[in-house]
Amino acid sequence: MKLVKVYVTLKESVLDAQGEAIKSAIQTMGYNQISDVHMGKYFELKFENDYANLEKDVDLICDDLLANPNVETYRYEILEGE
Amino acid sequence: MKLVKVYVTLKESVLDAQGEAIKSAIQTMGYNQISDVHMGKYFELKFENDYANLEKDVDLICDDLLANPNVETYRYEILEGE
Repeated sequence: MKLVKVYVTLKESVLDAQGEAIKSAIQTMGYNQISDVHMGKYFELKFENDYANLEKDVDLICDDLLANPNVETYRYEILEGE
Repeated sequence: MKLVKVYVTLKESVLDAQGEAIKSAIQTMGYNQISDVHMGKYFELKFENDYANLEKDVDLICDDLLANPNVETYRYEILEGE
């Protein structure tokens, strides 16, 4: 089994309004050391078997479904599942 | 600077409806090797300085703001930022 962990975040050039709101909230809570917050999405995909095209398929799944290529970027890591 | 990466996911006992929907979508796209999908939230918190209570503060921020302790669980890693 393969476990793929996908992290989808906004591109650097796109305003992360949620992140800004969370930063303000954290500062309001009194944690003034916080300097920046970014929010994104996290996916765990489990594949039954390893196969040659896994990486290509994950790229396609991210491009076509998990991330919005206009404003988001993604990275992933493929791990050996139990 | 310290970079804290926080991963918030639903507890195992809670139905991950979004994950199930994404799994169906991926299968419909023809990737039948997919066996499970979980969706969560991902946060990057930047702190200006390292300090003794950082880990305690991150726990409080997660418990009180980033995660819903009723249905979600979180984990994080603290990295040396540039």
